[in-house]
Amino acid sequence: MIHVGVNGYGTIGKRVADAVRAQPDMSVAGVAKTSPNFEAKVALERGYPLYAVDEDRTDEFAEAGFDVAGTVDELVAESDVVVDATPAGIGAENAELYREHDTPALFQGGEDADVAEVSFNARANYEAARGADYVRVVSCNTTGLSRLLAPIVEEYGVEKARVTLVRRGGDPSQTGRGPINDTLPDPVEIPSHHGPDLNTVFPDISVDTMGMKVPATLMHTHAVNVTLESETDAESVRELLDAESRLFVLPPELDIDGAGKLKEFVQDAGRPRGDCWENCIWGDSITVDGRDMYCFQAIHQEADVVPENVDAIRAVVDTADKEDSMALTEDALGLDGQIGRSVRDPVAQAPTLTDGGRESDE
Amino acid sequence: MIHVGVNGYGTIGKRVADAVRAQPDMSVAGVAKTSPNFEAKVALERGYPLYAVDEDRTDEFAEAGFDVAGTVDELVAESDVVVDATPAGIGAENAELYREHDTPALFQGGEDADVAEVSFNARANYEAARGADYVRVVSCNTTGLSRLLAPIVEEYGVEKARVTLVRRGGDPSQTGRGPINDTLPDPVEIPSHHGPDLNTVFPDISVDTMGMKVPATLMHTHAVNVTLESETDAESVRELLDAESRLFVLPPELDIDGAGKLKEFVQDAGRPRGDCWENCIWGDSITVDGRDMYCFQAIHQEADVVPENVDAIRAVVDTADKEDSMALTEDALGLDGQIGRSVRDPVAQAPTLTDGGRESDE
Repeated sequence: MIHVGVNGYGTIGKRVADAVRAQPDMSVAGVAKTSPNFEAKVALERGYPLYAVDEDRTDEFAEAGFDVAGTVDELVAESDVVVDATPAGIGAENAELYREHDTPALFQGGEDADVAEVSFNARANYEAARGADYVRVVSCNTTGLSRLLAPIVEEYGVEKARVTLVRRGGDPSQTGRGPINDTLPDPVEIPSHHGPDLNTVFPDISVDTMGMKVPATLMHTHAVNVTLESETDAESVRELLDAESRLFVLPPELDIDGAGKLKEFVQDAGRPRGDCWENCIWGDSITVDGRDMYCFQAIHQEADVVPENVDAIRAVVDTADKEDSMALTEDALGLDGQIGRSVRDPVAQAPTLTDGGRESDE
Repeated sequence: MIHVGVNGYGTIGKRVADAVRAQPDMSVAGVAKTSPNFEAKVALERGYPLYAVDEDRTDEFAEAGFDVAGTVDELVAESDVVVDATPAGIGAENAELYREHDTPALFQGGEDADVAEVSFNARANYEAARGADYVRVVSCNTTGLSRLLAPIVEEYGVEKARVTLVRRGGDPSQTGRGPINDTLPDPVEIPSHHGPDLNTVFPDISVDTMGMKVPATLMHTHAVNVTLESETDAESVRELLDAESRLFVLPPELDIDGAGKLKEFVQDAGRPRGDCWENCIWGDSITVDGRDMYCFQAIHQEADVVPENVDAIRAVVDTADKEDSMALTEDALGLDGQIGRSVRDPVAQAPTLTDGGRESDE
């Protein structure tokens, strides 16, 4: 069993902890949190040992009535691998702590690439992270682009990719963010950071990205253009993408017009927290014009990096190769690239908050 | 004086009527409206003779207390040119009426291209509409793309244009429209109708467009990529676009991040209804990478076709060439491609509702 510590128990950390617990070869050593709130309550109810940043914070948790197992320092010492899911920029500050304990660590995409030896996407470059001490799981958007481009690079070659990323303004719980009723070029400068970030996974791809922010919270939506190096047709591209386990090509008969219906679909399918781990590509949008391929895809910013974190754990401890790890992760989560194929009963399968054991992998 | 009838007094019609009244060589023969509402009240207060669709509707206006000068049939008979600003699809139904009276007519971009002899954008193809009987002023988005591409085609040549149009879900007054908190590929199919529509103005341009809808009402935002036929740099493109009277290259020092601040800027500048007649291109977004040019532009869907309608009137009656008409239109409106340069006093310049005369052109 790989004992995994999760430092930072927010949007990403809590999802990674649950996904780790669902794996047959992993256990959650504990989760660390800065302040007591509803998420701390859920962590304890789920049976995760809760760690505080330092002694002062330990007192704060105690005053709020939450039992604390120790400080982050102790969690790192007890873990085989730490997943750092702290806010952007904090991960880099934590790197020294992981080095002191000689504990391998994963960082999230909000950190600069130089925080780690490898910027990671399971489908694109799993092997590069095997045995590495420090790995950065790229951001939700870069993960979405990496998964989409990996099979296209292999099958057709990419002359140039151009992507407009229409980003949600904030997550549903980020009530302080905007915009309201506006569409912001963000950043105004071109390329946005997403293109260079994609190059940390695919150094050789020529890619230009344009970022925008809109008053939506559910998902990002990408308008993708790829000029291929060889000719093909839309049906071949659709089949290529459909064969990928972490790409879901939305069939038109589902009548899903945006992130709202998509989210409702995955909720109905019994996914925990309504998480959509896959890229969702509108099948009707896949278009080929000469060597230009186009499509729209939706990216669930809270969820798509979760299976990637699980795979990166195995890469770091080097207990599985790419195919085995991805299959193990997906089997444990019930992720098979066809959301409607494995519909769970959303009531029957829901773990109770006091269910400290591993969730069903059905 | 060119006597102009405006059939349809909604979002576009009321703006065209005011712009026509501001021209030194035009007068408003009257405006026609389907139903009595606040816009009918404003039309009468501004001194525009009000026409009803038919006798039944005349009674409806009378019951609501609005004086009606006659029916649309009479308005068409009295007009030298009719601007049809009725909802999409109704214009085509009205075409027979204009033919019966042998009255030249302009249609809006919501109609199919075959409603008219020419699809029109002043900067791109004014000359093609001179002396035509029926002209279609292309939609707000196609107008925005035509204005941007015209100088680029002339200066560099266009190998291929690829545009993602992030469209406002509805105008501020269209309270029945969505989406709320979602980003919709719309249409899902690629290309959206905007590419083929642009080809009605530029038959030879290779262009692919992707459309989306977002929960915003103020403006459309375009993420534009143009692969040029010749090499250049960002500064040269900026200067090229800056020299165009209907393109406003937003300087970074204005600190305008989206349509909200942009709208506030034009309101502060004293523009009627806060209208932004120009394309607004973020200067910092103009980027050249090899032969790929990129930029973001905002398009005010309620306003950018207004000067184009005025020019199309002169083209149809053939009283001015392109340069003279565009200059006359812009001078009368106070549109000079530099919104901050001619700031009006928003209080002092505002016409009272009972000011039936022509608005100041300062």
